[in-house]
Amino acid sequence: MPGATPARSRHDDPRVRDRLGVIRDIKRQLVIDAARRVFEAHGLEGASIRLIAIEAGCTTGAIYPYFRGKEEIYAAILSQTLIALKQFIEQHLARHRRPIDRARAALAAFYAYYKAHPAELSLGLYLLRGAGVRPVGLSRDLDRDLNGQLRTVFDAIIAAIADAGFDRAQALTVDGVSHAIGLLVMDGTGRLRIFREPADGLMMDYLERLLPQQ
Amino acid sequence: MPGATPARSRHDDPRVRDRLGVIRDIKRQLVIDAARRVFEAHGLEGASIRLIAIEAGCTTGAIYPYFRGKEEIYAAILSQTLIALKQFIEQHLARHRRPIDRARAALAAFYAYYKAHPAELSLGLYLLRGAGVRPVGLSRDLDRDLNGQLRTVFDAIIAAIADAGFDRAQALTVDGVSHAIGLLVMDGTGRLRIFREPADGLMMDYLERLLPQQ
Repeated sequence: MPGATPARSRHDDPRVRDRLGVIRDIKRQLVIDAARRVFEAHGLEGASIRLIAIEAGCTTGAIYPYFRGKEEIYAAILSQTLIALKQFIEQHLARHRRPIDRARAALAAFYAYYKAHPAELSLGLYLLRGAGVRPVGLSRDLDRDLNGQLRTVFDAIIAAIADAGFDRAQALTVDGVSHAIGLLVMDGTGRLRIFREPADGLMMDYLERLLPQQ
Repeated sequence: MPGATPARSRHDDPRVRDRLGVIRDIKRQLVIDAARRVFEAHGLEGASIRLIAIEAGCTTGAIYPYFRGKEEIYAAILSQTLIALKQFIEQHLARHRRPIDRARAALAAFYAYYKAHPAELSLGLYLLRGAGVRPVGLSRDLDRDLNGQLRTVFDAIIAAIADAGFDRAQALTVDGVSHAIGLLVMDGTGRLRIFREPADGLMMDYLERLLPQQ
């Protein structure tokens, strides 16, 4: 119809755009939550976009606008985990005033978070590389993004340890984090029971040795 | 044919029995080796007796006399791993005479074995329990047997540490083993690269702090 002013696209209206954004976020999160359940039930290898769609109650075609494949959904879950982990550590830091207590609390919180969320630890460990069990094919970009997020988690711990006056705060952080993961794995696989020493006590003892009162 | 002496069963002849035993062991090992490759390619969830049979070049019916299911094959792999790990540790112990060197060598060998065999570490970690990723359903008996084998590995390390004059040798062993596993996992997932500190150096530094010259 020549001469008629073209109707303004609904997408140009900021209020409509906001509402569409909210719906988009909700739908995306529904897919992520469904994928978590599928990964827990079937493992990463057994999971597929088809199974995730069934669990989310949608078609596979409704997932692809949000994620190109299960690797991207997996990365999104890990990313949300790392955000929650960082908040958890910050909350624990806020509960203490003495620098030495804050330093220990940072590492204790890292341990406690994964102790309380074994599924998230399991999912994270699936990244195990090497000639071994087939890793999930995270793209270089996704891998770099996740490493960047993990770096900010570690930076919060490093800062707390440095503030308590320790030299080599980064090396102490690597040690503490590695030790926590090792204990959690030994505990999670049931292999720690051999020693009849509870993981929580072992972690607290270790922290006192790693970060002694100065 | 009444009156005829029944032919003596071939299985009553010890030489035949020995040879049948050898063949049985070879066939069993072929299944285990095929299963390793299938687990590495498809993960535990993706593996099936059918896939293992295809990889081994036999029928599924040829597997069931040896193993009731993939869990039993998985347990057999872990069992062989633990035997090799124990031998590796003993070989490293034999290279040193000073008790302090033997104590460190025991834990260093534990770390080095899994560093050299990431697939075996990955397979072992699949046992991760909790509300997380579905664990392989090892029966109570298989689980107890594996824990018993792992116990003998740890006992060798504990003995070396105790011989070096350390108190609490068991606690030091749990610490050292947990730390090694944590570093290997961080290294295997590529997450250690964030810190630009190589896992081997971190492990050796840790061992010197854990087991200082006395």
